[in-house]
Amino acid sequence: MSSAEPESQPHMGEVTSQLSVSLDGYVAAPGQSRQDPLGRGGLRLHEWLFASESWRGRHGLAGGERNVDAELIDEMTAGVGAYVMGRRMFGGGEGAWDLDWTGWWGDDPPWRVPVFVLTHHPRESLMMRGGTEFHFVTDGIEAALARARAAAGDRDVAVAGGGGAVRQYLAAGLLDSLWLHVVPIVLGGGTPLFDGPLDVPLEPVKVVPAPTVTHLRYRVRR
Amino acid sequence: MSSAEPESQPHMGEVTSQLSVSLDGYVAAPGQSRQDPLGRGGLRLHEWLFASESWRGRHGLAGGERNVDAELIDEMTAGVGAYVMGRRMFGGGEGAWDLDWTGWWGDDPPWRVPVFVLTHHPRESLMMRGGTEFHFVTDGIEAALARARAAAGDRDVAVAGGGGAVRQYLAAGLLDSLWLHVVPIVLGGGTPLFDGPLDVPLEPVKVVPAPTVTHLRYRVRR
Repeated sequence: MSSAEPESQPHMGEVTSQLSVSLDGYVAAPGQSRQDPLGRGGLRLHEWLFASESWRGRHGLAGGERNVDAELIDEMTAGVGAYVMGRRMFGGGEGAWDLDWTGWWGDDPPWRVPVFVLTHHPRESLMMRGGTEFHFVTDGIEAALARARAAAGDRDVAVAGGGGAVRQYLAAGLLDSLWLHVVPIVLGGGTPLFDGPLDVPLEPVKVVPAPTVTHLRYRVRR
Repeated sequence: MSSAEPESQPHMGEVTSQLSVSLDGYVAAPGQSRQDPLGRGGLRLHEWLFASESWRGRHGLAGGERNVDAELIDEMTAGVGAYVMGRRMFGGGEGAWDLDWTGWWGDDPPWRVPVFVLTHHPRESLMMRGGTEFHFVTDGIEAALARARAAAGDRDVAVAGGGGAVRQYLAAGLLDSLWLHVVPIVLGGGTPLFDGPLDVPLEPVKVVPAPTVTHLRYRVRR
């Protein structure tokens, strides 16, 4: 078998993302702050998630519902070997770059794999409990993705958010697929997922209905 | 059987609506004019519709695809006994109230039932071929709906659009259900379906996946 045969190529994971959006396309409500990271009323975007057993388990909480949402979360997180995360999602605003800040998620964050945080401020990596490592990348989205790919090996890389980071990867043609969890609320303002035209060919490839949210999966056509 | 028994109550149709929206929530692209009623590039919102046999048949055109989209269009239009339509959808802008203007759809419009057009300008009704009647209502959305209900009898009333009219009926609590046809394009501007917060409890009740569009049905909870 020559090295040119496909079997000898290393399998490469996908670059995916998933976001909860309101019916009017916002990923966070108006008035975001470190006290209110999703804005006033923005937690309603994630109620479906908080109610699920999968999310609660990853956050060290008992209970929750074993439902179609929980199955989907398991499916989406199972294959992820590394995350890329925007500055605001890690830090919650411009003022969050004090070195005491270790993210929103306490000592034992739910990520459990390396997380590459996009930032303009160099900072030493943070090794957290449970396998989460925060690495700070100052040389752009492609560099962060390359490092995440290397860390993930043949597993997937997920762009964890926020909306700005997902939009940048999508616009740069670096995303393979995107799950949108469409929550039937109208926020009327806040952080939009899309903030201008975007010429990326998206194909709806899967739809998962649930009682309080509709999960839509799109693939970026090549 | 006394007249108080439910069977003797006249059946009342639903008040429904359906709209094609981009992934970022626009029902028309920027640059709407009478020449370009859906704005520059806005026709992409309706490509799924134009390709379907049902739509083509109603517009007197042969051909088209007999697919899940066509079945859905038939399902949505079959029960409609009257339409309500916004001023801009009928007229295409502020300057369109000349009396020569009889709508976008030629002599034989696809509506085939009475259509109540919201306007500030009184005008005599237009009787078109094929059963379409345009009636012009100057005393508000509730009056237009009452007239449409009377015309529809026990059939449904559909708010045909545009986005502004649908939003008004939704905000006033007058809509029973809403189909959104989510087209995987990002327009980045134009006419948004929602232009502010809206506190209407919507429940996703049906999802119909299709290759180029995802049909989501919401019910307004009472």
